[in-house]
Amino acid sequence: MTLFQIDFEPIGKRVEADQSLSLLAVAQQAGIALAAVCGGVGVCGACKVRLMAGELSPATAEEQDVFSAAEQAQGWRLACRAFPLSDLKIEIPPESLTATQRLQLEGVSQAVDVAPVVSVRPLRLTPPSLTDLRADWDRLMDAFPLVKANPQNDLAVIAQFSTRMREQDWAGQLVLSAENAVIGTLSPAARPYGLAVDIGTTKMAIFLVDLSTGKAVARMGAMNPQIAYGEDVVARIAYANQGEADRLALQRRVVETLNMAITQLCAEVQIKAAQVVDLVVVGNTAMHHLFAGLPVRQLGQAPYVAAATQSLSFPARSVGLDCAPGARVYLPPNIAGYVGADHVAMLLASQIHRLPGNSLALDIGTNTEISLSRDGKLLSCSCASGPAFEGAHIQAGMRAVPGAIERAQFFDGEWHISTVDGLAPVGICGSGILDVVAQLLESGQVDAAGRFTAATQHRVDHPQGGTIELVSAEQSGTGKPILVTRGDIREIQLAKAAIRSGVEVLLSESGISADVLDRFLVAGAFGTYLDLDSAIGIGMFPRIPRDRYRQIGNAAGIGAQMMLVSEPSRREAEAILDRVAYIELTTVADYMDIYVDAIIFNRTE
Amino acid sequence: MTLFQIDFEPIGKRVEADQSLSLLAVAQQAGIALAAVCGGVGVCGACKVRLMAGELSPATAEEQDVFSAAEQAQGWRLACRAFPLSDLKIEIPPESLTATQRLQLEGVSQAVDVAPVVSVRPLRLTPPSLTDLRADWDRLMDAFPLVKANPQNDLAVIAQFSTRMREQDWAGQLVLSAENAVIGTLSPAARPYGLAVDIGTTKMAIFLVDLSTGKAVARMGAMNPQIAYGEDVVARIAYANQGEADRLALQRRVVETLNMAITQLCAEVQIKAAQVVDLVVVGNTAMHHLFAGLPVRQLGQAPYVAAATQSLSFPARSVGLDCAPGARVYLPPNIAGYVGADHVAMLLASQIHRLPGNSLALDIGTNTEISLSRDGKLLSCSCASGPAFEGAHIQAGMRAVPGAIERAQFFDGEWHISTVDGLAPVGICGSGILDVVAQLLESGQVDAAGRFTAATQHRVDHPQGGTIELVSAEQSGTGKPILVTRGDIREIQLAKAAIRSGVEVLLSESGISADVLDRFLVAGAFGTYLDLDSAIGIGMFPRIPRDRYRQIGNAAGIGAQMMLVSEPSRREAEAILDRVAYIELTTVADYMDIYVDAIIFNRTE
Repeated sequence: MTLFQIDFEPIGKRVEADQSLSLLAVAQQAGIALAAVCGGVGVCGACKVRLMAGELSPATAEEQDVFSAAEQAQGWRLACRAFPLSDLKIEIPPESLTATQRLQLEGVSQAVDVAPVVSVRPLRLTPPSLTDLRADWDRLMDAFPLVKANPQNDLAVIAQFSTRMREQDWAGQLVLSAENAVIGTLSPAARPYGLAVDIGTTKMAIFLVDLSTGKAVARMGAMNPQIAYGEDVVARIAYANQGEADRLALQRRVVETLNMAITQLCAEVQIKAAQVVDLVVVGNTAMHHLFAGLPVRQLGQAPYVAAATQSLSFPARSVGLDCAPGARVYLPPNIAGYVGADHVAMLLASQIHRLPGNSLALDIGTNTEISLSRDGKLLSCSCASGPAFEGAHIQAGMRAVPGAIERAQFFDGEWHISTVDGLAPVGICGSGILDVVAQLLESGQVDAAGRFTAATQHRVDHPQGGTIELVSAEQSGTGKPILVTRGDIREIQLAKAAIRSGVEVLLSESGISADVLDRFLVAGAFGTYLDLDSAIGIGMFPRIPRDRYRQIGNAAGIGAQMMLVSEPSRREAEAILDRVAYIELTTVADYMDIYVDAIIFNRTE
Repeated sequence: MTLFQIDFEPIGKRVEADQSLSLLAVAQQAGIALAAVCGGVGVCGACKVRLMAGELSPATAEEQDVFSAAEQAQGWRLACRAFPLSDLKIEIPPESLTATQRLQLEGVSQAVDVAPVVSVRPLRLTPPSLTDLRADWDRLMDAFPLVKANPQNDLAVIAQFSTRMREQDWAGQLVLSAENAVIGTLSPAARPYGLAVDIGTTKMAIFLVDLSTGKAVARMGAMNPQIAYGEDVVARIAYANQGEADRLALQRRVVETLNMAITQLCAEVQIKAAQVVDLVVVGNTAMHHLFAGLPVRQLGQAPYVAAATQSLSFPARSVGLDCAPGARVYLPPNIAGYVGADHVAMLLASQIHRLPGNSLALDIGTNTEISLSRDGKLLSCSCASGPAFEGAHIQAGMRAVPGAIERAQFFDGEWHISTVDGLAPVGICGSGILDVVAQLLESGQVDAAGRFTAATQHRVDHPQGGTIELVSAEQSGTGKPILVTRGDIREIQLAKAAIRSGVEVLLSESGISADVLDRFLVAGAFGTYLDLDSAIGIGMFPRIPRDRYRQIGNAAGIGAQMMLVSEPSRREAEAILDRVAYIELTTVADYMDIYVDAIIFNRTE
């Protein structure tokens, strides 16, 4: 049979297949984990893809049920029902990928001109001799009068310079900062690289970027090692408050992880750590402070102020980072004690401060940071959404690791689930519990107050009261049934109320209603793998047209890369701080009313 | 009997005494260790003092022998022969003090206007509240618009600021650098202090200075702990070259000693280490490099160049110094690989670059640095004088510690000695062996070639050949005789030849002879306790009128204090670098001739 070339975008994977296999099967064979809640029988709609070029088998009856005429016209298909008839270009939307694959996707990247902070110049010096006894560093100054005199030049640079010049026979390249301070030297053909880092409370994302091209050439995810000292920000602050040694231990652990990442990423692309000449690090205010060695005590007690919000820059060596001797770490500004530099990076990547009309962008985590832009004027707040979406406080909750239920649908009287990596289910992650609650509501098994109804199916006895069995003991990977309790639903209610009330306060302070929002951007790991229909279904997000929503991936990581590659992007991030008004929710007069209102599931949309 | 008030200068000690005790006895009772080689019988002339005010008993016959009529007219007396007849003011010249007391003297201090690099401003901020959520650091910036934004402000400062402001109820004082970067905060009444440090290869001198008055309020000496890793600069460099960890270990040991000194000196004047807001450190180029973390490999191999000669400044915290969080260490420039920042500090203190006429200044050590000023134009060189004057390579040699013979005279066929602290003799220190050789020469017991003659007395058998007994076993503190060998004399010959040939090269390159030198300044520990007549006697120093010589004490330490107290002094030190031409002796065509000529004792003066 004829073999067709099939390009899956935006993953960028090309495979060959004939017309005997569905796109779902082709994708699965190629290692692309498309979601398939119903098992590929055309019912759940989870495997939707869009035909961008080429010809597929005609749309089936199931597909005509799932997609509107407009959607069909745009090329939307179910991968499990569509078979190739020619070479194809297929777009896989993030929501059709499983969590682990989705998180490997780049965020939505913004084109920035490559204009890094550092510059590279060729270097050739006359070696010292008995008739030319100038000191090594003076020799450099004589050759490069533009090189700034002390104290900008780090001693570590001067120290390494003498050694490197003798190793390199007094030739190579000089790496200079924007202020013409020396960052280091490179051998004649070596290229300069930079590191962009997003330190999350749970996970870290680390990108090695070629500063000549502006492209990330290697990346890795790592657990934040501070997790051993406390699961969340509050516990981390409490640990740090025990004493300076404990606070600095948290800093050291992150630095160790970054050094390990530098080693691995550099090995991957066969460069030396000394070629890493610039770094940008983002994180929430607590992660930012702990990494920078700033105290966090005042973050943990009213009125919860940051030690510093303006952008910071310090020598990478001063915290023990192993890279070019004069490399500096740039930290973009924080907005407030609980709206950090990662949110600024996300705003930069989203560009909502530059877009006309009304745009909302949020990043869901234990704290959810939300910003609303009205023609570029920004209002921000932070709400304590809690760890439910990270699987904590949920009876069978877990992180989005292999075996976690990440999607759930209820139809034909049964629960249909899919798990991360397709393993036998062992628990429920954030997107899974969100789906379950949305489906319970939609099917009338839970009422507006969050109580199970008479219509509830698969009830089981449980010491905590109202409980359903999502997965039976036989189907479970643990040998025990996977349950959802009334307490779990309560947790989701509180979390979604926190987020929704934050959105509502920003709207109300701006004097607009949700329906005039032109766009609603959802960033971050959970924000990228949650199901938008479920989030709207439980009232966490407002009921506005679906095409105004956009899941933008690790936008904080993208923003960090933009600032690494482009000095103007740093200035833009700093200017965002001037455009932002921060709202402390607890000082909003009717905040508690809004919050309590948001707890009820059937609030007026 | 009538009690008189007797002031001893420049020690500044006042005691009461009647006319029954000689000035020597009065001084000894007061704990002032005057040299007394002959035991106070008016023969050796070592206890000479000068009457500045008041009346003494008439000059004795012995004194009329020792002093010229002009000297008698100037008030010179022997302390052992003079008795008080009124209240007195007595000057004790440094050469009449024993080594340990002499080293406690200040160097010759230069008056500088108090104009430190740091400034102090009162600080009072509104505490944060729910209606004023500005970050701590932003709050400061708002109150002090002149405070420079990052990256000048060290993160350690920002880190400490949050904590200190809460401890101090948001009030106190702000310490700013010349560039208005924040160095730290002080409580409302606290004064700012600084630390001036002279890191010698063997000893360190550390001065705590009140920056409000410019006065040193506490000082201490300490051994350089690097001595455990190598006695001299060459051994130290070899150790550092083993690897970066070893090099940094040498740095760490010095930093540990400085931290210990900061703790002790601050306790002594009851201030906190955080009140130390500025530091100036001087040392020879190797000590400078090791302290600053610069490589020394290139200092140890031809052509012996410094990694950097220009002045440096770096955060004190970056090397682990425990003081104000933003305090910086200032290092004045080096001149060359073997003429370091300590020599620049000594030149600054001597002010020879500002004096009219011809001035020579030198600091004797294992390396002896020499500068010649002709109306402010400077020529400098360094000569490898070796460790003989530190007691090394001398049969019975030792440092100038208690029990070391520091003075020796030969008369009446016998050796007369005095020891540090007057203990039973256990060995000979640099000034002692210098005296012995000078006396052997003067008494004809050693010839111009350095060989013992037929006139040599107290000869003893020794495996190394020609040897004399300086102290018998019965008089020795060790129970064994203290000997001086022909090898010892050879060591002194080589050392004095190195120094003298350096002086001669500078004179010759300047086209002048020694007799037109207007002043000859001798700095440093050994330079201060050596006997000038002996140094001239063996030909180490040229035979020019004694009143052109001046022993100026720890001038490098004084220079460091000047730069700590006065920013213009730093600029002056940097300007000295522009006035200096460095001469590498090995490139001087007839250097070896000059050197060999200087080895002979009876060179033409």
